[in-house]
Amino acid sequence: MTETVKVALLGCGVVGSEVVRLLDDQAADLTARVGAPLELVGIAVRRPGRHQDVPAHLLTTDAEALVARDDVDVVVEVVGGIEPVRSLLLTALRSGKSVVSANKALLADDGATLHDAAAQAGVDLYYEAAVAGAIPLLRPLRESLAGDRINRVIGIVNGTTNYILSRMDATGAGFDEALAEATQLGYAEADPTADVDGYDAAAKAAILAGLAFHTRVTMSDVHREGISDVTAADIASAKAMDCTVKMLAICERRATDGGAQVAVRAHPAMIPRSHPLAGVGDAFNAVFVEAEAAGSLMFYGRGAGGAPTASAVLGDLVAVARNRVSGSRGAGESAYADLPVQPMGETVTRYHVSLDVDDQPGVLASVAGAFADEGVSIKTVRQEGRGDAATLVLVTHSAPDAALDRTVRKLSGMPFVGRAASVMRVEGLATD
Amino acid sequence: MTETVKVALLGCGVVGSEVVRLLDDQAADLTARVGAPLELVGIAVRRPGRHQDVPAHLLTTDAEALVARDDVDVVVEVVGGIEPVRSLLLTALRSGKSVVSANKALLADDGATLHDAAAQAGVDLYYEAAVAGAIPLLRPLRESLAGDRINRVIGIVNGTTNYILSRMDATGAGFDEALAEATQLGYAEADPTADVDGYDAAAKAAILAGLAFHTRVTMSDVHREGISDVTAADIASAKAMDCTVKMLAICERRATDGGAQVAVRAHPAMIPRSHPLAGVGDAFNAVFVEAEAAGSLMFYGRGAGGAPTASAVLGDLVAVARNRVSGSRGAGESAYADLPVQPMGETVTRYHVSLDVDDQPGVLASVAGAFADEGVSIKTVRQEGRGDAATLVLVTHSAPDAALDRTVRKLSGMPFVGRAASVMRVEGLATD
Repeated sequence: MTETVKVALLGCGVVGSEVVRLLDDQAADLTARVGAPLELVGIAVRRPGRHQDVPAHLLTTDAEALVARDDVDVVVEVVGGIEPVRSLLLTALRSGKSVVSANKALLADDGATLHDAAAQAGVDLYYEAAVAGAIPLLRPLRESLAGDRINRVIGIVNGTTNYILSRMDATGAGFDEALAEATQLGYAEADPTADVDGYDAAAKAAILAGLAFHTRVTMSDVHREGISDVTAADIASAKAMDCTVKMLAICERRATDGGAQVAVRAHPAMIPRSHPLAGVGDAFNAVFVEAEAAGSLMFYGRGAGGAPTASAVLGDLVAVARNRVSGSRGAGESAYADLPVQPMGETVTRYHVSLDVDDQPGVLASVAGAFADEGVSIKTVRQEGRGDAATLVLVTHSAPDAALDRTVRKLSGMPFVGRAASVMRVEGLATD
Repeated sequence: MTETVKVALLGCGVVGSEVVRLLDDQAADLTARVGAPLELVGIAVRRPGRHQDVPAHLLTTDAEALVARDDVDVVVEVVGGIEPVRSLLLTALRSGKSVVSANKALLADDGATLHDAAAQAGVDLYYEAAVAGAIPLLRPLRESLAGDRINRVIGIVNGTTNYILSRMDATGAGFDEALAEATQLGYAEADPTADVDGYDAAAKAAILAGLAFHTRVTMSDVHREGISDVTAADIASAKAMDCTVKMLAICERRATDGGAQVAVRAHPAMIPRSHPLAGVGDAFNAVFVEAEAAGSLMFYGRGAGGAPTASAVLGDLVAVARNRVSGSRGAGESAYADLPVQPMGETVTRYHVSLDVDDQPGVLASVAGAFADEGVSIKTVRQEGRGDAATLVLVTHSAPDAALDRTVRKLSGMPFVGRAASVMRVEGLATD
């Protein structure tokens, strides 16, 4: 039995400083739960002068030396980004240290390399904090549902875009205005690209799909669309059909003639207001999991912020430290299923299409014909307004995304169609 | 490495037959996830003739012999009740077998004996299915939140009473009528005592409190009240203040002058309709967890039924089988905190009190005086009706339960008070 479990921390921002605080505040409880004291032996930061709130003697700018120290048992990483973190964590894993990481970008980009290194060294690589902050989600997927078949994971996993879309829905504001408000309130970063363009949600979708389907899924397998093109008109269209617009991460297991495939995407979509995800406001996260035997499960909580993320980091730290003490290793990567990723064009979705049209005989027949030509079945159609202000609003049944896309492009080229005022996928309706 | 993990099943009812089916249906996936095949080597039942759907050669009526078999690695128990199951599981644990159980009554009654036996033998005792069916709840409490301090767990954990109360709320029916409907639809058992009188919810509360607070909590530590005294008038009173009535399991960590204590209870209570638990209908379960760093988390899903419960059993089975294969043991019982259980009289709650009163000067002053005498602060008071039909409706601030109880008894003895038409605790309001 190890006398103490020695912990090195990489990064000491909003999350890291909470980790330091909780390690100190709850030392007695953590010791009892691990079976040995946790000792913080070093904190790698870029600018030590900025961290007055943590013990100065622990600070170092030499992360390479810290992760290579012989006396370190566990490396906790809350820096983010791909390099130099990947190299640091590989050094740590290869030298027999367990790793706890909150780094969704790295896990989604190159989790395989890290998992391989962890398996080879017989150590743990845990990353609950990488998705949905404090919400226990990865451990339930990896362990609680290990005896079930997961068919679908759908969730709101990015707080920034959820705040922006919630404001657009509540106030009728356009995207730019809502983003400005989010930035002012600290819900959006100075450079909001990762959130607004869907990179953050896509990375989380890749991680969730990998766990849910026992398959390696990377960022490049995820179809990604951001919310910067979502207009006040889209939100109004959604409202008119008693829907709201949410940025969703969607992971699906699809039966095809050639066997099961996985479809993974992150994009804005309309969902009915009656759907439980529709009520998830502000910067909260919520994730639905649909499994064959378990049915529908929902997990809800704070998806970001220093303390919630630190809670997830510490839960992992206790787990890997316990394993060190008992000389065991937790469940490693499970990627045996190795399911192929379905191209987005073949993925079955539904579209909501709102078209500005000339109000003249034969228009509906032509529009309906364009859908029929692509084999897309229409679920509902209604005309709003008359004359120059006529709008045709259609919702399709499920169809391959490529067929829907081709239909919309064909419609846009029709002489009596002004423009496709709003084209958006629709999720969460009862199945066809 | 074990060549195969051999599993004995005790019980083959609604849950057990689903476990058998899933073990067969998903054999390839389970083998890949465990790292070795799971082989069902025996099923103990009382009447083998009733189980045409499972392989006859596996059936036995001799459960004692089955759990003692040398070649059995894991015993899965879905029988329920205290004896003979406790003896059977003790035999299994003491002979080095890991145990997966769905038995809330046994775990709440005498989990300590089972945990001690598991620790002594160095084997696993998992029981995710004992609380909230398929919803991953115990593993998140035990592992994901192991680095946090849980302050409160509050949830709807009994589907039968939730169905009955939901019907009373929706239709205005009385308890007997709603129970009859639940029985007819199969939501209530022929003998509904365990559900209706709160034993089931209390057992689950004990298990949740034990995990949340790292303290041994048994059934006898739980304050329990059933729903058979809930009247249509109570439901109407709740509606009048925009609340609904739910049967709740509530586990709290309370700071007192003498240190932290735990308060554990299962009883019907009014909650605001705006509270997320208010919308949990039919036989669904939902549990809120409030932790210091993580904030509020919610877990939602199916709390009962063959397939959902079997999903939880199989998740545990995969975990303990993996541990057998790797020669390790999962996180065992954590009861180091050993916090004292707060007597219900000292537990701080709020009351909603509806009194039929004579409409005469001085009544409110006398009523208010009775509360003041016991040191109970009134949050809101309103009079409904006039003359003979006058009703005084009061909601208190938080106060010790005993003081509230004494106040109500004193009020009932007042000459101008007809009767306490409705007395019920109120939960889920913003803190005083």
